[in-house]
Amino acid sequence: MALAERLTRLGTETAFAVSLAANEWGAKGHRIYPFHLGDIDLATPSVVTEAMNKAIAEGKTGYCPGAGVPVLREALAEDTNARRGTTYTADNVVVQPGGKPVITKFLQAVMNPGEEVLYPNPGFPIYESQIEYLGGVAKAYRYVPTERGFAIDLDQVRSLITPNTRAIIYNDLQNPISAESTDAEREAVAQLAIEHDLWVLSDEAYFEMRYSGESKSISALPGMAQRTVILYTFSKKFAMTGWRLGAAIAPLDIARVISTMNTNNESCTTQFIQYAGAAGLTGDQTGVKAILETLRGRRDAAFDVLSTTKGIHIAKPESTFYLFPDVTEAMAHKGVDEVNAFATEALHATGVSFCTRKHFGRPQPGEERQYVRFAYSGLPEEDIREGLGLLKQWIES
Amino acid sequence: MALAERLTRLGTETAFAVSLAANEWGAKGHRIYPFHLGDIDLATPSVVTEAMNKAIAEGKTGYCPGAGVPVLREALAEDTNARRGTTYTADNVVVQPGGKPVITKFLQAVMNPGEEVLYPNPGFPIYESQIEYLGGVAKAYRYVPTERGFAIDLDQVRSLITPNTRAIIYNDLQNPISAESTDAEREAVAQLAIEHDLWVLSDEAYFEMRYSGESKSISALPGMAQRTVILYTFSKKFAMTGWRLGAAIAPLDIARVISTMNTNNESCTTQFIQYAGAAGLTGDQTGVKAILETLRGRRDAAFDVLSTTKGIHIAKPESTFYLFPDVTEAMAHKGVDEVNAFATEALHATGVSFCTRKHFGRPQPGEERQYVRFAYSGLPEEDIREGLGLLKQWIES
Ligand SMILES: Cc1ncc(COP(=O)(O)O)c(C=O)c1O
Ligand SMILES: Cc1ncc(COP(=O)(O)O)c(C=O)c1O
Repeated sequence: MALAERLTRLGTETAFAVSLAANEWGAKGHRIYPFHLGDIDLATPSVVTEAMNKAIAEGKTGYCPGAGVPVLREALAEDTNARRGTTYTADNVVVQPGGKPVITKFLQAVMNPGEEVLYPNPGFPIYESQIEYLGGVAKAYRYVPTERGFAIDLDQVRSLITPNTRAIIYNDLQNPISAESTDAEREAVAQLAIEHDLWVLSDEAYFEMRYSGESKSISALPGMAQRTVILYTFSKKFAMTGWRLGAAIAPLDIARVISTMNTNNESCTTQFIQYAGAAGLTGDQTGVKAILETLRGRRDAAFDVLSTTKGIHIAKPESTFYLFPDVTEAMAHKGVDEVNAFATEALHATGVSFCTRKHFGRPQPGEERQYVRFAYSGLPEEDIREGLGLLKQWIES
Repeated sequence: MALAERLTRLGTETAFAVSLAANEWGAKGHRIYPFHLGDIDLATPSVVTEAMNKAIAEGKTGYCPGAGVPVLREALAEDTNARRGTTYTADNVVVQPGGKPVITKFLQAVMNPGEEVLYPNPGFPIYESQIEYLGGVAKAYRYVPTERGFAIDLDQVRSLITPNTRAIIYNDLQNPISAESTDAEREAVAQLAIEHDLWVLSDEAYFEMRYSGESKSISALPGMAQRTVILYTFSKKFAMTGWRLGAAIAPLDIARVISTMNTNNESCTTQFIQYAGAAGLTGDQTGVKAILETLRGRRDAAFDVLSTTKGIHIAKPESTFYLFPDVTEAMAHKGVDEVNAFATEALHATGVSFCTRKHFGRPQPGEERQYVRFAYSGLPEEDIREGLGLLKQWIES
């Protein structure tokens, strides 16, 4: 019996294959240093867990409104406004089981089949997958290396816009490349959106994962709140990746339809977890600060080793928990042509497991440099030093 | 800025309006007897909550596989086989945040735009909504009253099947009408599915919510496992409606694509809740039995009053937690034509709040009798007797 035709357009996260290869190598008795997972091996702050237990004891175990419980929607609106300078109310907030559901729901809300959506590539792989699954045309825009990291190729973005372009996906504080917009760049993206009447998905998964400076949201720029949907998630800030709690923060018309999608898809997000999230936002921030400090130590450790490895070029990002070095010369030195083969050789030689550029969207024509991604959120500082030390030795040998 | 065209086809659960009306009436100081919610006011068994706390303490707070953690998938396959006589393995089980997500994922997997899907009407309203949202043609089949409750109008089902029909949604132990198939009826539905090469969504949300007899699954009939997707949920059996835990139990090709949909939509279901669910299946069953006994008492109380109310016709269902009486004569006696107006008058006269047939799909041509739905899962026995006693008085006066 045939399955539906739309499935031929459904992509996925190919990084799964990297996990599998690492697990298989580990099962053979080899020590693995897992830099491939965008996950966090730290405990969720106790203020969150305790609030959850309290909510269960109070009987918050039944269905709740599809858009979320009022206390969480209000806390999120307030928190968002305080950090971004926006003026959202609870009505703009639609709670989700994670940040990821916002991607498909945004696209379902604004994009018709045949319409074009711009998305960052390399970027979070679900953008490309969902644009195409829903019948849209995924148009990749690229980043170019700069002294301080990477910048969006704004000329390319401009050249990609047609009358058929409906939306742009924008991931400031970017996974996998840790790019961060300057004010000028963010304003230029906003300007293009306004000029061409585009919807914007602002993926702010890493908004508070930063080690210096301050994050800004494109939604706070003039004229942007009414065309922007923010992807908010508890996953990173609160080390809650497996709890599945996030939200769409959206103009009212979009918030309403996303709420109806919730009623159709999953009814609501786990009720007591919503109370836990609200306590995370408004309660004691000690745990959140400790998570960030731990990640800062890991970033410094990873950067120290990689930045002194011959054949690797890397800038020091102030946000996310990824490093995205240029390994072109290291690959040449090791005599490897293809970046996934380089990752496999590195795994077998050192136990260090990582994703490559190829796990973050189809490579674009004209790409010449080779990149890999190290996530330093999933292993302790000393393992980071040890693993990357082995990698350095291997690369330089 | 325009939203996407598909949204014009997105339905919802209109029972929300009933909640709103009840809340508004309650806010004016009136006592409300809430029979409109398909929710349970009982605590989740402690074996489940304790397993959740243990899982959190063990650090099960990160991302996990999109299809679910192995221990839950295995427990569900075993439990399903034990109760249904099927031969599933863990590979057939794809965990979901609730049973509801199985509806859209099943349809996305098997139905192309323009194709027809048969669905029960009155029935769970999301069937109709998602068939149409995804571009299909929703073809309603009906039930006819019998001595023992309701039966599927098999002749009508047969007459609705065309070469363009792809699937049938089958909800044995039915919401809202509490219909239950005889063996012959279930076999006839299976026969039609095989003859016309249809996929089957078997919504088994109430499989274990029964007060006598034994449930059977259409998936266990010869030739059916390869064309059937079971909607499984923890919501009812474990009083876990707000926890959001369920599963699709499906042929391998469908299980695979639904797992990829998970990766695209919500990444995974809350990890520690999956461990909690596994403990619910394999651990102490005292709590589960107590829930069912409480519901049996409520059913008996509700049935006692309604079956002795003049102008109401009702059979005593052995499953679900709904009563779906024929109120045609009661309405005539009260001089009300329209069933939602009848519900509003009843609310204002007695505080008893309930849904009507109209909240469960678009009424079909030729319907002459009027029905309403009482959910007795959300209030204690004495409130049931008191509320329905007031309703009886009002109806008979
Ligand atoms: C850029 C980006 N967006 C969204 C997400 C979604 O995370 P979650 O669904 O856990 O909130 C991630 C997670 O890795 C991410 O890196
Ligand atoms: C017939 C039927 N199917 C599916 C569901 C979905 O329940 P859940 O998503 O909580 O598992 C319900 C809930 O009321 C139902 O009545």
